Amino acid sequence: MNPTVTTSTATDPALGDLDLRALFEPRSIALIGATDKSPWSLNTFQNIRGSNFGGSLYLVNRSTDVVHGERTYRSLADLPEVVDLVFVMVPTTAVLPTLQDAVTCGVRAAVILTSGFGETGPEGKALEDEIVRFSRSSGLTVLGPNGNGFINASAGITPYGLPIGRPLITGSVGFVLQSGALASSVLQFAQSRNIGTSFLTAMGNESMMSVTDVMNYLVDDDATSVIALFLESVRDPDEFRRVARRALEAGKPVVALKIGRSALGARAALAHTGALVGDNAVIDAAFEQMGVVRVRSLEDLILTAGLMAGLGGGLPGPRLGVVTPSGGASEIIADRAEDEGLVLPTFGADTTRELQAIVPAFATVQNPLDVTGYVVIDRTLMRRSLEVVARDPEVDFAVLLSELPRVPGNDPELTLTAYGDSARSVRGTAVPTVVLSTVLTDVTEYGREVAQRTNFPHVVGGIEHGISAIANAVRWEEVRRRALGADAAPEPRPSVFDGEPSGMWTEYEAGRFLASHGVPVVPTERVSTVAEAVAAAEALGYPVVVKASADGLGHKSDIGGVKLNLRTPEEVSDAARSVFDALSGRTTTPVALLVQPHRSQDGLEMLVGVVRDPVWGLTLAVGLGGVWVEILDDAAIRVLPVGRREIVRAIESLRGTALLRGARGRAPVDVEALALVVERIAAVAHGLGDRLQALEINPLSVTGGECEALDALITWTLPNPGTENTL
Amino acid sequence: MNPTVTTSTATDPALGDLDLRALFEPRSIALIGATDKSPWSLNTFQNIRGSNFGGSLYLVNRSTDVVHGERTYRSLADLPEVVDLVFVMVPTTAVLPTLQDAVTCGVRAAVILTSGFGETGPEGKALEDEIVRFSRSSGLTVLGPNGNGFINASAGITPYGLPIGRPLITGSVGFVLQSGALASSVLQFAQSRNIGTSFLTAMGNESMMSVTDVMNYLVDDDATSVIALFLESVRDPDEFRRVARRALEAGKPVVALKIGRSALGARAALAHTGALVGDNAVIDAAFEQMGVVRVRSLEDLILTAGLMAGLGGGLPGPRLGVVTPSGGASEIIADRAEDEGLVLPTFGADTTRELQAIVPAFATVQNPLDVTGYVVIDRTLMRRSLEVVARDPEVDFAVLLSELPRVPGNDPELTLTAYGDSARSVRGTAVPTVVLSTVLTDVTEYGREVAQRTNFPHVVGGIEHGISAIANAVRWEEVRRRALGADAAPEPRPSVFDGEPSGMWTEYEAGRFLASHGVPVVPTERVSTVAEAVAAAEALGYPVVVKASADGLGHKSDIGGVKLNLRTPEEVSDAARSVFDALSGRTTTPVALLVQPHRSQDGLEMLVGVVRDPVWGLTLAVGLGGVWVEILDDAAIRVLPVGRREIVRAIESLRGTALLRGARGRAPVDVEALALVVERIAAVAHGLGDRLQALEINPLSVTGGECEALDALITWTLPNPGTENTL
Repeated sequence: MNPTVTTSTATDPALGDLDLRALFEPRSIALIGATDKSPWSLNTFQNIRGSNFGGSLYLVNRSTDVVHGERTYRSLADLPEVVDLVFVMVPTTAVLPTLQDAVTCGVRAAVILTSGFGETGPEGKALEDEIVRFSRSSGLTVLGPNGNGFINASAGITPYGLPIGRPLITGSVGFVLQSGALASSVLQFAQSRNIGTSFLTAMGNESMMSVTDVMNYLVDDDATSVIALFLESVRDPDEFRRVARRALEAGKPVVALKIGRSALGARAALAHTGALVGDNAVIDAAFEQMGVVRVRSLEDLILTAGLMAGLGGGLPGPRLGVVTPSGGASEIIADRAEDEGLVLPTFGADTTRELQAIVPAFATVQNPLDVTGYVVIDRTLMRRSLEVVARDPEVDFAVLLSELPRVPGNDPELTLTAYGDSARSVRGTAVPTVVLSTVLTDVTEYGREVAQRTNFPHVVGGIEHGISAIANAVRWEEVRRRALGADAAPEPRPSVFDGEPSGMWTEYEAGRFLASHGVPVVPTERVSTVAEAVAAAEALGYPVVVKASADGLGHKSDIGGVKLNLRTPEEVSDAARSVFDALSGRTTTPVALLVQPHRSQDGLEMLVGVVRDPVWGLTLAVGLGGVWVEILDDAAIRVLPVGRREIVRAIESLRGTALLRGARGRAPVDVEALALVVERIAAVAHGLGDRLQALEINPLSVTGGECEALDALITWTLPNPGTENTL
Repeated sequence: MNPTVTTSTATDPALGDLDLRALFEPRSIALIGATDKSPWSLNTFQNIRGSNFGGSLYLVNRSTDVVHGERTYRSLADLPEVVDLVFVMVPTTAVLPTLQDAVTCGVRAAVILTSGFGETGPEGKALEDEIVRFSRSSGLTVLGPNGNGFINASAGITPYGLPIGRPLITGSVGFVLQSGALASSVLQFAQSRNIGTSFLTAMGNESMMSVTDVMNYLVDDDATSVIALFLESVRDPDEFRRVARRALEAGKPVVALKIGRSALGARAALAHTGALVGDNAVIDAAFEQMGVVRVRSLEDLILTAGLMAGLGGGLPGPRLGVVTPSGGASEIIADRAEDEGLVLPTFGADTTRELQAIVPAFATVQNPLDVTGYVVIDRTLMRRSLEVVARDPEVDFAVLLSELPRVPGNDPELTLTAYGDSARSVRGTAVPTVVLSTVLTDVTEYGREVAQRTNFPHVVGGIEHGISAIANAVRWEEVRRRALGADAAPEPRPSVFDGEPSGMWTEYEAGRFLASHGVPVVPTERVSTVAEAVAAAEALGYPVVVKASADGLGHKSDIGGVKLNLRTPEEVSDAARSVFDALSGRTTTPVALLVQPHRSQDGLEMLVGVVRDPVWGLTLAVGLGGVWVEILDDAAIRVLPVGRREIVRAIESLRGTALLRGARGRAPVDVEALALVVERIAAVAHGLGDRLQALEINPLSVTGGECEALDALITWTLPNPGTENTL
């Protein structure tokens, strides 16, 4: 194992000094502040001594000669060599002097286990900042403070402050966790399912190094094939996106448990879009667009990572052929496959015929296949059936319901032979085969031994989580193909303004702006008198709509501010007068009227909004609009930039697609044409960059392939000049 | 353990001869067809010999002297006593003669392991029927054929044909499974989580005894406190309902994994109701109404059963106070609690003050509480915090994130003391406390030993499934309180007909029928001429609607068969003429017109349907109607009979409740008034009993508290006389 280490020098000058090789692959380590009184010290010492670390380990304690039964050194300067890594466990106030000593001695990397920094409040934060400043200026690479250290399992280097349950199983899953306490559970669960780890770290305070730095390291680490994350927050979305892309291009799946599903963040609650775009939905969208597999539990995190490490990537498609020894399990699998959008194709005639020759006469040949309890008599039933199923041309991959033995049986040799035969079958199938156990229990020590001795493939833990893991592997491959394919987002369309726009632009201004950028908007004339209204109507052609237009008007129709379907000059002048009357006294700003052609109600009302997410930036929401918004509470979310194929998928994912397909005698919506307009709107919004708080078109009326914005609203990040910003 | 056994004699004469005590609590067993060649024979023998069965066990083999190392008997007649139970493993064709022998000898109960019966086809079914006939007439109680036998763990009686993983942990969960192969996984998983079993059986072909018989036995079994089911189908819904009710009254939760979520059964696809009422939704509704907890995985089945067995029932309410040693885990718990509709109340001022005195200064006191990694130093942090949290008056129950040790630590005595102290704390809290581990791994042998020695409470396996189990326990208690409370369904309203109704009744007939049974229906006159139409309009008052009425007319409005908002006699006569013209030639049956008052569009359109489910019978669906049906695809389902409080809950569970609350300036719907009308409709439908195939009112227009059926349709189970039944 000799991973190539790339530091992020090229892209992030602030991290240019990070020496990740010295940090994560040290040949010598000093534990500073080692003491028998600290369980962390003891754990770290035992972890390193208990691994096959080939380098030197030194204990440093300024006042005790023997710690953990070994001699100590009084200071770093006393050591016989300059160590690659110092593991710092001294009291909080002693951390900085310790680092200064280390730098003086020529040390390039430190893990700080000590807590009492940023996590405790402003005072600790100041101390932490000082440490970061010093380390940056001195070329010292620091992990922590307030972390557990790390486990470089593939290299056998384990400076890690919590107990590591034995055996530490080595494999290709690299874990990066924003929680120290959970790291133990992650290790425990991975071990219990015989899932091997290449690397694990709990980040601590991420003062100098953050999750993305370690991810970056793991993308380049030959020993790591899958990166598994526990995330409380994404600190640098742009960097995260960049690293996720690198991982995707390297064919290394990134699987993430991101908590905070239930939290509601702060966001401009503009009209409907704000309410539709929940934090959680944005994270889902951002992760999906980046090809990061989001999971909902620690079990799913580790099982999905374990499956994908076993597969070396994803699964080629959603169609599975299943072989089981149980009708009940087959039915559970069928239910779960349906939940997850997987497909159980009917076996072809050849497959069926061949299977009928294998299984007992009373068995029903179908997918999933139950070979029946006769496996108790004929152990070859399962693997012979599997070979046939995996040859079916309708099947993208196969699933074998089987598991490792828990305890030695009466005839251990027979067991080894049987598992060896199965292993060869599974590894030789025409399409990839996933082995799945029925329920989620530990792989026992004996099971692990049998797996090792027979080269038995990875067994995914239980149908419930296993089918989720399988679906994740299928989706990752789909997203990867899409993301690496050509669905380029259009260039943002930059806009030029006379002075920076501010406050809120309502219907007229927003509509004019969008129209001038190529978005189809209903023609609108703004007039100040009854006579001008009539003239505008004559110019536009009857029937027309007359609406009030003034700052601070809420629902115009509730106050008689909207008059529809006006067919003659008389009707227009009556309506205009009536609207002026209705508004008199309601607003202190000048009142104008808008005159527009009256559109029939035949169009389907869509909503297209772009809103600024505090983490992920401008985010597109597409949903059914008008009256539908409140009822359906359904929008498809994508983080900008986004290409047209992705917009089509977004539209087609809506719950109300029955309407799009032309329910109630309406012409079906031309989704491609709609997507073109949405793409344009997104590009305009994207071009506004930091200026834009939110933009909403509601409704965008869609009739077949014709789209027209009937109302729009833009909120700028600059507050309204002269009004107090109460957002 | 001396459970009282009640056979179902009183309620089901067909099962009057079942002797469940002889079957499940035999003091002597004979294995008929015991042979070294059969793994089932060997398993059964080893299972019984390996348990602490105090009775006699005999092996019967007609041609071999020694089997499994023990002497055999040539026939039942050679045994020194009349055994309570014969366990039959002879070839298929020898089963009936064997049973005949057994009856001759005075045996009262049999397990038939042999397969080759109903599951193989008609021939096997005939053989099986013969066995049932014989057994019934001879007073022989039979479990199987094609079953595994059973495990009466609490009594130590294990005539069971598959290997039982050791140790078999005894406890109070009784398992009844409609799958033999899954039984092994169920046992394995229960054992891995240290969940004790009182009883387990895989039913086999249910020829004479079915799931409900065993459930009935377990309701009366003192050793069983929770009944866990794996169901492929419910054979006798009425009996199932009766037994579920008995269990509810006995305070014994029934938890069920019912597969077939993905399957679509046959059902009258009348109008919209048929499409809205999916099999799976009906099962959900039926189970919820019966107080049966439906789960989605084997893990949830066993973990929920284990939790509820530990609690001795449900949990008192949805508000939990949580104590953890991890911020990350706290956030996962918060997400999961939100998923499951649980509530994390803010701690009261007293609780907060007391907690601040316990946890480190930098810890944040909130719910869930993270006591921080200082638990490594101070092991008492968790339990002291727990005691405080459990005293908070806003908390219905507490959750402690903790787990049993996996391997012995450096100081086993310290471990025992610590777990002993924790155990006392947990068992002494002011509200029930659930102990939850972070991830789902096995309880190890050492962990089990520590639990036993310290009387440590049950630890639920992992946050992901644990929070589901907790939510199940909360919901069960809610449903139980409701179900045992007073929400009586109204008496069905029987109807009298001149001759049995048949075919389909459309708008006029259905409306008249419903109106005559107290359902508010828009006044409707059926007329045959233009003059009659005008007269009807005059009588009803303007404006009116004129509609075509004839058999076999589809969407009337599509063919010009509906004229709205007619305000004068002239408009009515023009409209009537136009409708007659539109219909001429379209139908061979007599054409009539319906005249109704024109209702404004202000009412909210609901759909109320009752459809016959093939398993659960008449089933009510309530949803938004009219245009909303196709878009929302959302209906609340309840099996009849149903009380008004349940109807209110059904209405309030709809996705489109924004509309009910008065979106878009509409008056809010008076849900109580609506529920009263729905209850009436349900009672009328219920009173129609077997006659009714489906009844649908769409729309039921609702304005505030006023409801009026604007259209209705009834399909009868009898086909239309004189027309071919093409359903």
